[in-house]
Amino acid sequence: MSVYTQVAPEEIQPLLDAHGLGQCQSLKGIAAGIENSNYFLSTTKGEYVLTLFERADPEALPCYLKLMAAAAHDGIPCPDPVTPLTTLAGRPAVIITRLSGGTVDAPTPEQSFQTGAWLARLHLALAAPELGRGLPPSHDRALVRERFERNLDKAKVHAEWGGLVPLWQGWVERFMTIPAGLPGGVIHGDLFTDNVLFDGGRLSGLIDFYYACSDAWVLDLAITMNAWPHAEAVAEGYRSVRALHETEEAALHPCRIFAALRFMISRLDDALNPREGEMVQIKDPLEYHRKVANLLGESAGL
Amino acid sequence: MSVYTQVAPEEIQPLLDAHGLGQCQSLKGIAAGIENSNYFLSTTKGEYVLTLFERADPEALPCYLKLMAAAAHDGIPCPDPVTPLTTLAGRPAVIITRLSGGTVDAPTPEQSFQTGAWLARLHLALAAPELGRGLPPSHDRALVRERFERNLDKAKVHAEWGGLVPLWQGWVERFMTIPAGLPGGVIHGDLFTDNVLFDGGRLSGLIDFYYACSDAWVLDLAITMNAWPHAEAVAEGYRSVRALHETEEAALHPCRIFAALRFMISRLDDALNPREGEMVQIKDPLEYHRKVANLLGESAGL
Repeated sequence: MSVYTQVAPEEIQPLLDAHGLGQCQSLKGIAAGIENSNYFLSTTKGEYVLTLFERADPEALPCYLKLMAAAAHDGIPCPDPVTPLTTLAGRPAVIITRLSGGTVDAPTPEQSFQTGAWLARLHLALAAPELGRGLPPSHDRALVRERFERNLDKAKVHAEWGGLVPLWQGWVERFMTIPAGLPGGVIHGDLFTDNVLFDGGRLSGLIDFYYACSDAWVLDLAITMNAWPHAEAVAEGYRSVRALHETEEAALHPCRIFAALRFMISRLDDALNPREGEMVQIKDPLEYHRKVANLLGESAGL
Repeated sequence: MSVYTQVAPEEIQPLLDAHGLGQCQSLKGIAAGIENSNYFLSTTKGEYVLTLFERADPEALPCYLKLMAAAAHDGIPCPDPVTPLTTLAGRPAVIITRLSGGTVDAPTPEQSFQTGAWLARLHLALAAPELGRGLPPSHDRALVRERFERNLDKAKVHAEWGGLVPLWQGWVERFMTIPAGLPGGVIHGDLFTDNVLFDGGRLSGLIDFYYACSDAWVLDLAITMNAWPHAEAVAEGYRSVRALHETEEAALHPCRIFAALRFMISRLDDALNPREGEMVQIKDPLEYHRKVANLLGESAGL
């Protein structure tokens, strides 16, 4: 979000000149987005988005940009870098193409279906193994478990969540793995509703590739199903493009439980350890607690 | 969003002192929210939210704060002002109570039901006619129509939307009214999913009263149904607390069409007339075009 770093139009003109992107006509902060600062950039040559990276691992940034370029080249509606990674206002920065459309508040089943279908196309577009090199392991089972254990003492004495900790420990013991050997490659990893743009009825953008990693494709489908209001429509859309292997069908439910736990744990960690001076996104950590309980057919214990 | 106005902890200490709110311990920008700057404020006395108003009509601000105080007093989970309206960093400002919980990405039918139920309780809590005095008419039929007509020339030549303009003109002609004489009072007017907090399963907050106005209650229900993924669950929740009068049941569908048109028009206006230097929220203007078409059982023409 643009709160982090303010940029003036005159600061970006040298970058535009260096890449033949015309004269800057306007630069407007974009309210969406928490991790990075984003601006809509209009120039005499076209419409772009300028991103300044605030927290991303600088080693991984070129890998993310390579992913977007490869997906865009393959016809996926996603941002396409039009400059190499550079530095602006002291931050790693890049200019990417601007997509049409916007996010929707209440996706329809049909929009959920389209999201699943494009997720499958994205997986196929990014199947080359070399695209996965250098990406951080953002869904690593051991790291998720460690993140949970690091917060146990704080969570136990929390007024509202303390009573749930024994339940969570049981869940982590039972569901912190998913089957090995599932087909996979690069996954988006964060295809929440605010990372998908629609232009009228048509899906016009998959954005925010900064949690991409190498993992099982069905895990990405599970993450997306958990995040959208019509989970089954997401899965149908996915299957309409890429049939799930028998082992993937069997792994889908365990993957949804693992994915729900993983997001529950990251939200708990964020809520219990707010970083001073940073912007806070208000997201209910217990939303994913309830998803686990629902997937298990258990009472949520709330 | 805090991008607008930065405040340092030492700037707010005099305000805390004046109202016995203790010593400031931390102040963190909140990423949610587009119109205003919001901070989580922790003091030795408790947890609060500091809001700096960036665009709101200064005449109406005391009215909004009175609404929140009245609703909170009546047991509605909503922000309760703990200071009078003051000035901070050159902006109108107020400190309010902090609610627990957070927004959810993909509300369940049950959460949609709860939202409808609390909307009905809010209507009953704010039924006193004097609470409506001084609120701007944010759903005024004539103003919505005027806003549409002001944008007609720009919309007609727009590459993607130009072809839809004749359809919109027909819709505005036919659906820009709702029946008169419906029961009403103060309505929230903007109960989108990002204005409702959940703490686990329980609805823990209705926030952002800055589009409240005096209007038909069923219009507020219609706005909320349009904005949530399970519209019928919202209506059932509402009816579980307050039965709809026969005239309201009959008006519900026309109200949904009017409300969808109203939000389509405000998003078009925002998209066609971005204000220089302001943060832009990316919301698909055509989302509400499709809602109108769906409510009419018409093809969306996209």
